[in-house]
Amino acid sequence: MKKVDFTKLTKENILSLQAYEAKEIPCRVKLDANESPYSPVADKNIPLKKKIFSILNRYPDPEARELKKVVAGYFKINPDNILFGNGSDELIYYLIVTFGGPVLYPIPTFSMYGIISSALGEMNIAVPLNESFDIDTGKMLAAVREYNPKLVFLSSPNNPTGNCFSYDGIIKIIEASNGIVVVDEAYLPFSKRKSFIPLLKDYKNLAILRTFSKIGLAALRAGFLIGDRDLIKEVNKVRLPYNLNALSQIIASDVLKDKRVIQSNIKSIVSERKKLFRELSNINGVKPYESEANFILFRVDNADIVFSKLLKLGVLVRNMNGVIKDALRVTIGTPEENNSFIKALQKAIRRHQ
Amino acid sequence: MKKVDFTKLTKENILSLQAYEAKEIPCRVKLDANESPYSPVADKNIPLKKKIFSILNRYPDPEARELKKVVAGYFKINPDNILFGNGSDELIYYLIVTFGGPVLYPIPTFSMYGIISSALGEMNIAVPLNESFDIDTGKMLAAVREYNPKLVFLSSPNNPTGNCFSYDGIIKIIEASNGIVVVDEAYLPFSKRKSFIPLLKDYKNLAILRTFSKIGLAALRAGFLIGDRDLIKEVNKVRLPYNLNALSQIIASDVLKDKRVIQSNIKSIVSERKKLFRELSNINGVKPYESEANFILFRVDNADIVFSKLLKLGVLVRNMNGVIKDALRVTIGTPEENNSFIKALQKAIRRHQ
Repeated sequence: MKKVDFTKLTKENILSLQAYEAKEIPCRVKLDANESPYSPVADKNIPLKKKIFSILNRYPDPEARELKKVVAGYFKINPDNILFGNGSDELIYYLIVTFGGPVLYPIPTFSMYGIISSALGEMNIAVPLNESFDIDTGKMLAAVREYNPKLVFLSSPNNPTGNCFSYDGIIKIIEASNGIVVVDEAYLPFSKRKSFIPLLKDYKNLAILRTFSKIGLAALRAGFLIGDRDLIKEVNKVRLPYNLNALSQIIASDVLKDKRVIQSNIKSIVSERKKLFRELSNINGVKPYESEANFILFRVDNADIVFSKLLKLGVLVRNMNGVIKDALRVTIGTPEENNSFIKALQKAIRRHQ
Repeated sequence: MKKVDFTKLTKENILSLQAYEAKEIPCRVKLDANESPYSPVADKNIPLKKKIFSILNRYPDPEARELKKVVAGYFKINPDNILFGNGSDELIYYLIVTFGGPVLYPIPTFSMYGIISSALGEMNIAVPLNESFDIDTGKMLAAVREYNPKLVFLSSPNNPTGNCFSYDGIIKIIEASNGIVVVDEAYLPFSKRKSFIPLLKDYKNLAILRTFSKIGLAALRAGFLIGDRDLIKEVNKVRLPYNLNALSQIIASDVLKDKRVIQSNIKSIVSERKKLFRELSNINGVKPYESEANFILFRVDNADIVFSKLLKLGVLVRNMNGVIKDALRVTIGTPEENNSFIKALQKAIRRHQ
C-alpha cells in the first residue's frame, strides 16, 4: 500500500480549517434555516413538471439566458449586469477567487464570508457590530483605511441579527473603499428598505447579492450577483460554465414570471413576524430583537437548555449562543408552526424556571 | 459616479484569462456535447415528480446522505470515500483549491483541468499525448520528477480522443507521484476496461472522478469524487455546504436504484458507436478513431468547412480543429440521429469534393 501523508500534501490554510457542519436534526417543526414555509410552485403545474423531465439528459444553458432575461425584467436592469451562482455562496467563492483579500465584514454576520475566505487562503478582517447590532461606521472606515480590503461584505438585513445597517454608513464605506463592497440583500424582500440596486449607477465598486433561497426555493441553489458589467465580466471568468443546473433555471424562471405568489407569501411571513414579535415580547424572560428579515433573534436565559427543551418538544430553532450570548434564532413559519413554537417556548421556559 | 479600474482590482492571473465560452448553436440534431440521447427517468414517474415539488422551499441535505448511500451501494464502497460536486467540474475546482499546483495533465484532454487551474492561479504542465493518443509515460514521469505536481489529471477514456490510456502507464505515474493522481472516469461506463476504484486500497494518492452527466442526467450537474477518506476529509473542507441541489440529489438517487435502465441505454449507445464507426470508415476521406466513450473523433479534410456544412444540414458536432488538426467529434445519438448525421456527412463531403 502506497502511504501518503495528507497533512503534508494539503495546503496549509486548508489543514487548519474545520469542515462546515450543517447538521440535520429531525424535528416536527423546522424553524432553524431561514427557509420559507411556502413553496411558490403550484403542485398542479403539470407543464412545468413535464418541461423539467424532458431535458434531463441535456446540459443546462451555460449562460442561463432565459432566467437572466426574467430576472433583468423583474429588477429593471440589464442582463449583462447579472451573474448566477449555485446559491449566492458560490458567488462569494468566485468574488474572492477573482479579487482576493483582505476580506472585511462586520461580526456577527453570515458565516460563509469568513469560511470561504479562509478556505481560499485570504486574510479576514472582522469588525464587531455596535450594541444596537448596526455597523460601527468609524471602526469599519478605519479598517478600510488600514487594510485596504479588496472585498467588503455587508449583509443587510443582517443574519443573524435581523436588522438593516445604516444606509449612510454603507454609503460611506462604499465611498471610502478602493475595493468592491458587496451588499448582500438575501433578506431584503422581507424589509421595507430600498434596495441598493439603483445606486449601481453611482458606484462602480458596489455589487449586490440576491438569492432565491429565502423566497421559497432553497432546494434550487440559485443566487445572483448584480453589478457593473466590467465587474461581472471578470467574475464570470472564474465561473464554472454549467454552474446553474437546468432544473433550477427552469423553475426559477417560471416562479418569477408571476410576482403575485411570491409577494403574497412574503406578505404572510411579514405579518406573522409582527405577530410573533409581540408574542415573544409578552413572554417573561424573552427579549426579541426587531427584525426586517424572515427570522427573529431573541435572548433568553440559559439558551442552550431552552434550545434542547424546544427540540424535545419537536421544534428546531437555531442556537446562536456562542455567536451572541444566550441568543436563539427562529425562522418565521406558517401560522400553525409559529403557534407550535410559541407554545413550546412557553413550556420550555416554565419548566426551566 | 465613482470610477473604478477593474483591471487594477482583479487578480493578475484572472485578468489574462478568457471566459469559457459554451456557445449554444441552434440545430436539429445535437451531437456536440457528449450527452446521452436518452433520459433514464420514465416520464410517467409521478411519485418522483411529486417528491421534487414537495421540497422546493427546503435546503438540500448538505451531506447528500441518501444519494451517497445509493452510490456507495452501487460501487460497493464506503460512503466516507465519496464527495459530491455540482458536476465533476466543481470537484476539480475543490481539488485544486485544497492541494494547489503544479497541475499536470496530458494534452489534448478535457479542457477544464487547465482552465480551472489557471483561474486559481496555479501552474499548469501539459504533456502531449503520443501519436496513438496514449499518454507518453516517459515524458509524464519526467514531468512528475521535474515539477513534483500536487495534482495529475488523467481522463480515461480520454476526451476528445475516445481511447483509454495505458493501464501500466497510469500505475507508473501513480507510483512515481508524491501528489494526488486523479483518474477521471466520466466515460468509463461506455468502455470494457476495469475501473481504477479497486486500486484505491493500494494507492492512497489515487482518486477517481465520476459523473451523472454522460449517462442521461447532464441537466442535474452531479459528479462525485471517490478517494481515501483522509483525502475526502480535506477536500470537504473547501466544499460549499449546500453544493448539490435537492432536485438533483433526489433524481440521481432514484435513477441509480434501478441499474437496468442505465445499462440498457449504455448498451444501445455502445452498439450504435460500433455501427457508426463502420459507417464512418466506409466514407471516403473520413478517418474515425476507435472509441471507448460515447463519442467518436474523426478526421476529415477541411474540418472547418465540413463542420459548417453539417450545421447547415441541421447537425451540430464539435469542431476540434485547433486542438487536433482537421478533427471533429460526434456524440453517439439515437439510431435516427446517427443516420441523420451520416447522411449529412456524406452530403457535406460530396459537396466539398
